[in-house]
Amino acid sequence: MTDRYEKGMEILNITNKNKIQEVFKELEDIAPDLGRLIVEFPYSEIYTRDGLDLKTRELATVAALTAMGNAEPQLKDHINAALNVENTPKEIIEVIIQMSVYAGFPAAINGVRAAKEVFKKRGLLPIE
Amino acid sequence: MTDRYEKGMEILNITNKNKIQEVFKELEDIAPDLGRLIVEFPYSEIYTRDGLDLKTRELATVAALTAMGNAEPQLKDHINAALNVENTPKEIIEVIIQMSVYAGFPAAINGVRAAKEVFKKRGLLPIE
Amino acid sequence: MTDRYEKGMEILNITNKNKIQEVFKELEDIAPDLGRLIVEFPYSEIYTRDGLDLKTRELATVAALTAMGNAEPQLKDHINAALNVENTPKEIIEVIIQMSVYAGFPAAINGVRAAKEVFKKRGLLPIE
Amino acid sequence: MTDRYEKGMEILNITNKNKIQEVFKELEDIAPDLGRLIVEFPYSEIYTRDGLDLKTRELATVAALTAMGNAEPQLKDHINAALNVENTPKEIIEVIIQMSVYAGFPAAINGVRAAKEVFKKRGLLPIE
Amino acid sequence: MTDRYEKGMEILNITNKNKIQEVFKELEDIAPDLGRLIVEFPYSEIYTRDGLDLKTRELATVAALTAMGNAEPQLKDHINAALNVENTPKEIIEVIIQMSVYAGFPAAINGVRAAKEVFKKRGLLPIE
Amino acid sequence: MTDRYEKGMEILNITNKNKIQEVFKELEDIAPDLGRLIVEFPYSEIYTRDGLDLKTRELATVAALTAMGNAEPQLKDHINAALNVENTPKEIIEVIIQMSVYAGFPAAINGVRAAKEVFKKRGLLPIE
Repeated sequence: MTDRYEKGMEILNITNKNKIQEVFKELEDIAPDLGRLIVEFPYSEIYTRDGLDLKTRELATVAALTAMGNAEPQLKDHINAALNVENTPKEIIEVIIQMSVYAGFPAAINGVRAAKEVFKKRGLLPIE
Repeated sequence: MTDRYEKGMEILNITNKNKIQEVFKELEDIAPDLGRLIVEFPYSEIYTRDGLDLKTRELATVAALTAMGNAEPQLKDHINAALNVENTPKEIIEVIIQMSVYAGFPAAINGVRAAKEVFKKRGLLPIE
Repeated sequence: MTDRYEKGMEILNITNKNKIQEVFKELEDIAPDLGRLIVEFPYSEIYTRDGLDLKTRELATVAALTAMGNAEPQLKDHINAALNVENTPKEIIEVIIQMSVYAGFPAAINGVRAAKEVFKKRGLLPIE
Repeated sequence: MTDRYEKGMEILNITNKNKIQEVFKELEDIAPDLGRLIVEFPYSEIYTRDGLDLKTRELATVAALTAMGNAEPQLKDHINAALNVENTPKEIIEVIIQMSVYAGFPAAINGVRAAKEVFKKRGLLPIE
Repeated sequence: MTDRYEKGMEILNITNKNKIQEVFKELEDIAPDLGRLIVEFPYSEIYTRDGLDLKTRELATVAALTAMGNAEPQLKDHINAALNVENTPKEIIEVIIQMSVYAGFPAAINGVRAAKEVFKKRGLLPIE
Repeated sequence: MTDRYEKGMEILNITNKNKIQEVFKELEDIAPDLGRLIVEFPYSEIYTRDGLDLKTRELATVAALTAMGNAEPQLKDHINAALNVENTPKEIIEVIIQMSVYAGFPAAINGVRAAKEVFKKRGLLPIE
C-alpha cells in the first residue's frame, strides 16, 4: 500500500466510504487495478489538490455528470458524496437545474431524478 | 422590455457585459429572439435563483462545458464570466483539471487551452 | 399562474397532457420550479413559435434525442408526443433509422427499441 | 458503378451536388471507399426511402447535428442541403433554436452561427 | 437475398450469430429494413474489408462504445463478439480500462460492469 | 522525478516524443501539474500495462477519439502516435472508417480529415 493509495483513501473515507468498498468488491474478480487507480489518480492526485475545497469539487462533478448524461450510477455516487461534504440538497438541485441551460432539459430532468433517489434513501425529501 | 428581460440583463451586466452585446449583434439579422431568450431564460430564470451564488454557478458551468468538450466559444465566455464573479484563475484551472477524471484528459487539456487564451488576454499568466 | 404558463400548458395539453402531470408530481417535493420552467420555456417560448408546425417540431425532437442517445425517457415521451400531433408510426421510424447515418447504428437501434415500447402500449404494432 | 451508387448520386445531385464532389476529391488519396459508402449507404439506402420527404429528412438532420454539436462541417453541409430541398431559412433557424431545449443553449448558438455562414454566402441575410 | 446480405451474414455468423437473430426478431414488426441494413452496411461493407482483422475490429468497437458511454446493449454485444473472434477477457478489460484516459473513469467503470455481465454468463470469471 | 514519471516518459519517448514536450511548454505557465499527470497516469499506469501492446492501444485510442468527435487535436496526436508504433496508414484509416457504424458518418469523415493532415505532413499520401 503506497502513500498515494493511503492519501486517496483518506479522501474517499470522507466523500463516499461505503461506495468505494462496493466498487472494490465488484471489480475484484475482473479489474482490481481499476479500483486501485480510482484511489490513486482521482482521489489521491486530484481531490487532494489545493485551490478548491471538497465541497466545491463534488458540486462541480455533479454539474459535469448531469451535463454528460451518460453516467447515472456515478452521478448518484457523487450526489451522495456532495451531501457528505456539506452541500445541501438545495445546492445540489440548483446546480442540476442549471444544467438545463448547457445540456438541455432532459439532462436536468434525469439529474433531478437521480438526486431524488439519493435524497429519498437519506430521508431528505421534501427539500426545504 | 419585460421585467424578466431586465432581471436577466442585470446578471449579464455582472457576468459578461460586453460578450452579450456581441452575441446580440451577431444574432440580430438571423435569430434575434434567441438573444432575448438567453437573457430571459438562463440569466433571468436560472442565474437569479437563490441557493447558489454566481461565483459557484459560473464555476459549475465551466466544469460542465469542459466535460462536454463541444462548445469552446461558450467555455471561453464562461471562463471570462467566472473571473468576473471572483473566481481566481487557480480555481478555474483546478475545476478544469478535475474534469480529466470524468471526461478524460483530452477534455481537460482542451479546457486548459481555452483558459490560457482567456487568461492571456486579461494579463493573468503565469497563474499564481 | 402567468400568461406564459397558460400558453405553455395549451401546447402540452396537445402534445403530452398526461406525461406533464406525471412530471409535475415527480418534481413537486424536489424541484417544482423545474416543472414550471418546462412549461414556460420550451413549451411557451419555443413550441408556440411561428415558422414550424408542431408535427415537424416533435419529429425534429425525436431525431435529436435519438442521435444524442442519452435521454431514453424523454425520447419515449417525444415519440408519444410526435404521435399525438399526427406523425405516423412510419414517419417516426423513418427519422430514427435515418439517425444511423449521423449518430451510428447503436443510436438508431436503441431509438427503434424506445419506439417499439411506445407503439406497443398504444396498439400500433406491427406498423404499416 | 452499381445501381445503388447511381440511386444515391441522384439524391446527392438534388441535395448537395457540389459538396459531394469536393468530398470525393478530398478522400481520393486517403479513403476513396468512404466516398463511395456515403453515396451507397446514406444516400442510396436511407434518403431514397418512402415515408419521409427529402425536405423533412434534411431538417431532421440539421436538428440532430445541431444537438450533437461536434460536427460543424457536416452541419453546414446539411443546412445547405436543407435549403436546396425547399426548407426556408426561417424553418432551419426554428429547428436550431428548438435544440436549445434538448441540447442546451451553446449547441443552439453554435448552430445559428453555422447557419449564418451558410446563409451569408447564399445572400439570405437578414432572414424573413 | 443479395450477395451483400450473404457476405454480411457470413461475418455475423462468426461474430455474433445468435444476437443478430434476436435483433431481427425484435425489429420484424417495426423496422425490418434496419435489420437488413445492419447486415448489408456494417457487416458486409465494413467488417469484410482488408487491412484490419476481425479481432482488432471488434476490440476497436469495444473501445469506441465504452468511450461513448451511451450504448450499453451494443457494448455488451460487441464484448461478446470480441470474445468470439479470439480476444481474451484480459485484452477486452485492458482496452476498457484504457478508456478512462480518454472518456473518464465513469465510462471505464461502466464498461467493466458491462464486461462483467458478459464474462459471468460465459463462465469467464475471475479473469486470469 | 519519480519512478512513475520516468516510466511514463519512456513510453512517451516511443509514442510521441516531440508532442509531449510541446504540451509541457504550453502548460508550464498555467497548469504544469496537468503535464506531470499525463505522464504519470495514462503513460505510466495505463500504456505500460501487460495484456495489450502499444500498437493495439494506440489504434484503440484512435477509434475512441474518432467516435467521440470532440477532441481533434488529441486525435491527430494519437494518429501520429499510432504511426510511431507500427500501425500502417491503412490500418488507421480502416479503424476510422469503421467508426461510421458506431458514431456516424460525420465522425468518420472528420476522422479521415484529421488523418489526412497528419499523413500529409509525414509524406504518407496517397496511402497504399
